[in-house]
Order: sequence, then structure tokens, then C-alpha cells
Amino acid sequence: MATQGQVITCKAAVAWEPNKPLVIEDVQVAPPQAGEVRVKILFAALCHTDAYTWGGKDPEGLFPSILGHEAAGIVESVGEGVTDVKPGDHVIPCYQAECGECKFCKSGKTNLCGKVRAATGVGVMLNDRTSRFSINGKPIYHFMGTSTFSQYTVVHDVSVAKIDPKAPLDKVCLLGCGVPTGLGAVWNTAKVEPGSIVAIFGLGTVGLAVAEGAKAAGASRIIGIDIDSKKFEIAKNFGVTEFVNPKDHEKPIQQVLVDLTDGGVDYSFECIGNVSVMRAALECCHKGWGTSVIVGVAASGQEISTRPFQLVTGRVWKGTAFGGFKSRSQVPWLVDKYLKKEIKVDEYITHNLTLAEINKAFDLMHEGGCLRCVLSMDA
Amino acid sequence: MATQGQVITCKAAVAWEPNKPLVIEDVQVAPPQAGEVRVKILFAALCHTDAYTWGGKDPEGLFPSILGHEAAGIVESVGEGVTDVKPGDHVIPCYQAECGECKFCKSGKTNLCGKVRAATGVGVMLNDRTSRFSINGKPIYHFMGTSTFSQYTVVHDVSVAKIDPKAPLDKVCLLGCGVPTGLGAVWNTAKVEPGSIVAIFGLGTVGLAVAEGAKAAGASRIIGIDIDSKKFEIAKNFGVTEFVNPKDHEKPIQQVLVDLTDGGVDYSFECIGNVSVMRAALECCHKGWGTSVIVGVAASGQEISTRPFQLVTGRVWKGTAFGGFKSRSQVPWLVDKYLKKEIKVDEYITHNLTLAEINKAFDLMHEGGCLRCVLSMDA
Ligand SMILES: NC(=O)c1ccc[n+]([C@@H]2O[C@H](COP(=O)([O-])OP(=O)(O)OC[C@H]3O[C@@H](n4cnc5c(N)ncnc54)[C@H](O)[C@@H]3O)[C@@H](O)[C@H]2O)c1
Ligand SMILES: NC(=O)c1ccc[n+]([C@@H]2O[C@H](COP(=O)([O-])OP(=O)(O)OC[C@H]3O[C@@H](n4cnc5c(N)ncnc54)[C@H](O)[C@@H]3O)[C@@H](O)[C@H]2O)c1
Ligand SMILES: [Zn+2]
Ligand SMILES: [Zn+2]
Ligand SMILES: [Zn+2]
Ligand SMILES: [Zn+2]
Repeated sequence: MATQGQVITCKAAVAWEPNKPLVIEDVQVAPPQAGEVRVKILFAALCHTDAYTWGGKDPEGLFPSILGHEAAGIVESVGEGVTDVKPGDHVIPCYQAECGECKFCKSGKTNLCGKVRAATGVGVMLNDRTSRFSINGKPIYHFMGTSTFSQYTVVHDVSVAKIDPKAPLDKVCLLGCGVPTGLGAVWNTAKVEPGSIVAIFGLGTVGLAVAEGAKAAGASRIIGIDIDSKKFEIAKNFGVTEFVNPKDHEKPIQQVLVDLTDGGVDYSFECIGNVSVMRAALECCHKGWGTSVIVGVAASGQEISTRPFQLVTGRVWKGTAFGGFKSRSQVPWLVDKYLKKEIKVDEYITHNLTLAEINKAFDLMHEGGCLRCVLSMDA
Repeated sequence: MATQGQVITCKAAVAWEPNKPLVIEDVQVAPPQAGEVRVKILFAALCHTDAYTWGGKDPEGLFPSILGHEAAGIVESVGEGVTDVKPGDHVIPCYQAECGECKFCKSGKTNLCGKVRAATGVGVMLNDRTSRFSINGKPIYHFMGTSTFSQYTVVHDVSVAKIDPKAPLDKVCLLGCGVPTGLGAVWNTAKVEPGSIVAIFGLGTVGLAVAEGAKAAGASRIIGIDIDSKKFEIAKNFGVTEFVNPKDHEKPIQQVLVDLTDGGVDYSFECIGNVSVMRAALECCHKGWGTSVIVGVAASGQEISTRPFQLVTGRVWKGTAFGGFKSRSQVPWLVDKYLKKEIKVDEYITHNLTLAEINKAFDLMHEGGCLRCVLSMDA
């Protein structure tokens, strides 16, 4: 490769400050060091976690930085000791790493990996604790160990999943975050059984993926709850069987659901990031066994509460990150499922724009009609 | 039986008003109606739930009533249709019923039974929605469907477990509440695996039974946390391997435990009833998999809180009632385990008094040296 070992200058959307429009800049991307992989990003989607950090709501958010964590691309070059991928491989960057060797990976109980967390949490690479991105010598922070709003990015080798090259990258980029999060919340975290009654709070991409996962798991009723009734029509295609708009009821939403289900739901999922909805999602669960899974990310500093009696009488409160999927082992499996038409992906893509139009894409996220917007990175 | 079909007048401790000393009264106990069992109580222990209701802290507490729910006795007579027990059977009254037929019992997911709850929750019997206790015609409410601070009580047939007559009733009365709650919290609710690190907040009877259960489950470290250092010596006999007194530390107790365990415990149990300790118990759990079980009963109106991130990063928050044991099926099994010396019971009994001394027994509960006080009911 002509670029191997060289600094690459390419376009990237830089977040200079919270809440200020991103700026497309010429960014220098250093070559991958030991244990690192440089990836040419071809397609990147926007997720609410990007908007959350960009909006300054994440107290650990760093600026200037390059956001983005739901994408797909091709390996350009690899650093010393990298054996799992090679230049030309099609890959999906994974913000949840999987090293296979740390206490977390070995536990068999979680998909969280501890290997590179201390570095990715502060916007740098593990090897030398610096960033591979710079503009005229000024470093720009990494984000979530992925920084996919750049034509080239550098990730740790434990943070990249090699996928079937037959998969269309403009579609499977979605398998980097939102869709697996929803499916996995059902399959891995809640382990919904056939015949279950499921409630989903929030029918964005994540909530719709929960619906899809619940349908595949054989749920008998899938109740979608959203304050935006426009979501209901589209949600039917993802398996939602009943709809409730909290605005149509005077009773607290948990009571509405308990009444609707003769005592409560078997499983509930909060896919919004609103702490009072998280409480409602727990409290609409059936006494004795109802399990509520928090998927949404709440504003920092906010807390969830309930009466302990809710738990003493058998409800269970859980959460999920990346749907409990082990990234490098399971993202390729999800890609295969997509290729076999066993899971939807295309249906979540409502908009296609280019990297240059990224600020417009962020604006679109606030529109009810937008699920995922995929950016083509070469333009 | 001479007494069968007759009203029995016997001694019972009546709670006339919250917080006022109990009064030993001559109480009339009506014969059992259809589906009911009249039991001669021989031994009754005191549990904190009795003190909680007596103290007026339970907003659903009814007065006048006969408290008590941890006891053992002999069936005196049975009402129409009762086939599972007969006069002379040795039994333990069960505040968690088990009918085997309701939605809860059939679910296979919980030990909570719905059959008699609507009646026992309001202090009456299901058949005719009245009480079997009265004093000169004035009805006295039942409590938890058991009311064991009476020489005779009437319970639903779904609320009584027939046990091996070889078992000493002055000991196995404890298998009516506290000890099974602790053991079951470990075995049924948390399902602690060998090698686990366990933290127990509160080393009363329930906390010590958790320790015993955790030791039997093969936990590698069992950390006991109590503000009363006197508990530590006795706790060693129940399997606790390390002790922490929150008063010895300036750091929040969850941080002390995280530091002590390289990241947090695998399982924690709150056996106090303090909502801020419930939070600490959750937050001292290991990221990715730590599970916290609420066993203590908090004062009414109090709420638990935490940041949702605690759950999103893999901690699980649960609770338990009667340790998840199915009462009629499993209390006899616990009695057998005791007879085979596989579980402790005698070791929890620190005091023996008579029914007449019940107020002294309530006072003893506030003393650090008291675990369980067993009342002999014939005196
Ligand atoms: N845990 C994880 O690993 C993970 C991964 C990806 C995304 N997330 C989080 O999941 C959440 C959902 O993501 P998304 O992309 O689907 O978001 P989205 O904004 O597309 O969807 C949210 C939906 O919730 C609805 N809503 C808002 N307030 C509501 C209320 N009070 N009651 C009912 N409905 C309400 C909105 O109308 C919208 O349809 C976000 O918080 C995101 O940060 C978490
Ligand atoms: N969930 C159920 O089914 C169930 C059944 C029985 C009992 N309970 C509840 O379990 C709890 C414990 O019962 P018990 O009989 O063992 O009570 P107990 O009073 O004998 O023991 C409580 C212990 O907690 C300690 N403690 C108090 N405050 C503390 C603090 N801030 N930090 C650390 N330690 C503290 C006390 O020193 C004492 O040793 C009670 O709330 C009781 O109502 C629940
Ligand atoms: Zn995301
Ligand atoms: Zn790892
Ligand atoms: Zn009790
Ligand atoms: Zn039942």
C-alpha cells in the first residue's frame, strides 16, 4: 500500500466545542502503532450517543474530537503484532472492545472488555497514550475508540470486527451500534421467551430493534410506547402489535400498562434515556418475575428511583451496553444473519447524506421521521 | 378431637394499637371453615416484620391484630375440603402461600402466590372475608395470614407446610421466615456460584443465613458489613470471612468494598432495610455482572436510587421474598436438611421466653446480642 507507514491527510468532521456545528477539516491521521489498525471508513451512521457528547451532555466528553461510532470500512494498514485483520479486510469498528484475555472477557458473564478502556475513555490510544489525529500538529481526541466521522481512523485491534466482504458496507455500518443494541437487549440481556408480553418505551432505531428481537424470540404481545404517534405506523413493520401514547392517558403510564396486561408485562425496555420513563418501565412489570432493561442513556447526573418493594416482590432491574453482544465474535455473526435475511438493516435507514452534510444529518435526528442517516464518507 | 368444630378460647398477644405494649388476652378462635386449618402453635419466634408492623411503620398494618409469622405447631382441626393436612400433623405456618394453581404458582418463575393475598392483605380469611379471632364478639384482625402469637390460629390450607414430626418444633419454628429468607436469597434469587465474592450488609439472622448459604454455595470470600462490631465474632461461625465496619472508614462503604475486591463483589445482599445501604450494596458490585439482592424491608414511602449507568454497565438489581422458596413444597425440605445437619437453626436462637414475656422479647430485638428469641406458647 502506498499509504502504509505514512501520515494520511483526509477529511474529517471535527467537534471543536460542544454544541457548535462540526467543521469538515483536513486531518492528519498517523500510521497505526503496535496493536492498532488504520481503517478507511466508507459509511458512517449517526447515533444518539454522538449527539449526546456533541451536545456537551457527557461530562467526560473531550474536545476537540472526532465523533462517530457506527460505521463500516476497509483496513488500510495494520501496526506491529496485529494478526486478526490485514489490509483489504472489510471491518466494522467496535466501541465495545473484545480482547478475549481480560477479567471481563474471561468471565463469560459480560461483553464489556477492560483492555483499552482506560485509553479510549480519555480519547487516546493505549500504546503511547496519545492521539493519532492532528491538525497541523495540534492533537484531536479520539471518541469511543472509534472516531468514525473521518475518512481514515485508527482503532485498537481489539476494537475491530472482520466481516464478510460480500456485505454491503452502506447497510451493515448500522451493525456497529443501534441495531445490535436492541436485538441483544432482548436475546442476551433479557432472554425473552416465547409467549412473553413485552413493552418497549421509545420507538427509535433501538426500540424498533428491540421489537424485531422480541418478535424473533416469539413474544406474544409487543406493546410500543411513544409520545410521537407517527412512530406507530412504521413500528408495525418491526413487530410491534399494540401502541400506547402516554399523552392519550391521564393515569401514569405504568398503570395503563398493568391494566392492559392483567398485572404487568414480562419484559420491558427503556429505549429513550429518560429516568422517569425508566421507573415506569420497571413498575409496569409483572410482580414475581417482570424484568426491565435500561437501554437508553440518561443525561449525566440523573438518577433512577423506585420503592424497594418493587424489587422485593420479584421485579428485576437490569441494563445493557451494545446489547450484551461480544463485538468481535458476534458482529460478524450479525452480518451473516443480515445476509441470510434473518434480521433487518435496510429498513432502519431513512436518510443518506455525505460527510460534508453531517450537520444536516444531526438536525435530522430530531425529526420523527428519521431513524438512521447514513453518511457516505468519500464525498 | 374434643375441640373440633368448637370455638376455642386461648391466650394470644393482641396488638391493640401501634407501638403500645402487646396485651395477653383471652381470645376466641372460631373453627376452621372450608379450606382452612386450625393450628395449635407451640413455639413462635419474633421477626423484624412483626416489629415493623407493631411499630406502626407499615401503612397497611391493621389494629387490633394478632402478629407473628415465624412458628411451628400441630394441626388441631381442618375445615371442609382440606386434604393436605389432618389433625395431629406437625406444621409450619407459611406467610407466603403456595396453591399450585394460580398464575404465579404456575409460572415457575416465582414463589409468590396470588390465591389468598387479597384476604390476608386485609387481615381476614378468604372464605367469608371475616376474621376467625374475636374477643367477646369484637373481631381481631389476622396478620400475614399466620398470626402465630396465639396459642391457636387459623390459616388457609395453602399457607401451611406439613413437616417431619421428628423435627423439634422449638427449633424449626425458625424455618418459617428469617433463615429460609437468607439461604434462599443466595440459592434461589442470586444463584451464587462457587468462587464468588459475596458482600452481606447487616449481620442479623437474615444476614447470617445469607452467609451460611453463601458458604454452602462455595463462595470464596464472604464479607460481612455491620455497624455493630459485636456481630463479627458470631458471624465467623456462619461463614463470614472478612469484616468491615462502615464507621471505621471515611470513604463511602461502596468504595471501600470496590477497593477491597479489585473492582467489586460478584453478589451483594442488603439485610437491614435501609435504602441508602441498598444503594451502596448495588454500587459495590462488579461492573459487568455484579448482582445485588434486596432482602431488608425499608420503611414505607422510602425509595432506592442510583445512576442508571450502574445498570447499563451490567449490574443487576433484584429482591427476594421468603428467599424465593416455594413454601409448602420447600419448607419440609429445609426441615429435612436441618435434621440431616446440613443447615444450622439452633445457632440463631439466642433467647427463649414465654408468650407472657412477649414485650420483653420485642425489647430484646434491639440488643446487638439477640438473633432470634423463641417463645414457648404454652406458658
Ligand atoms: N445501552 C447502549 O448500549 C445504547 C446503544 C445505542 C443507543 N443507546 C441509547 O438508546 C436510546 C435510544 O436511541 P435511538 O437511536 O433509538 O433514539 P431515538 O431518539 O431515535 O428514539 C427515541 C424515541 O423515544 C421517544 N420518546 C421520547 N420521550 C418519550 C417519552 N417520555 N415517552 C415515550 N416515548 C418517548 C421519541 O419520540 C423517539 O421515538 C438513546 O438514549 C441512546 O443514547 C444506548
Ligand atoms: N424479604 C423478606 O422476605 C424478609 C424476610 C425476613 C426479614 N426481612 C427483613 O430483613 C431485614 C433483616 O432482618 P434481621 O432479622 O436479620 O434484622 P436484624 O435487626 O437482626 O439485623 C440487622 C443488622 O443490620 C445492622 N445494621 C443496621 N444499620 C446498619 C448500617 N447502616 N450498616 C450496616 N449494618 C447495619 C444491625 O447492626 C444488625 O446487625 C429486616 O429489614 C427484615 O424486615 C425480609
Ligand atoms: Zn450508538
Ligand atoms: Zn477484554
Ligand atoms: Zn419475618
Ligand atoms: Zn398460588
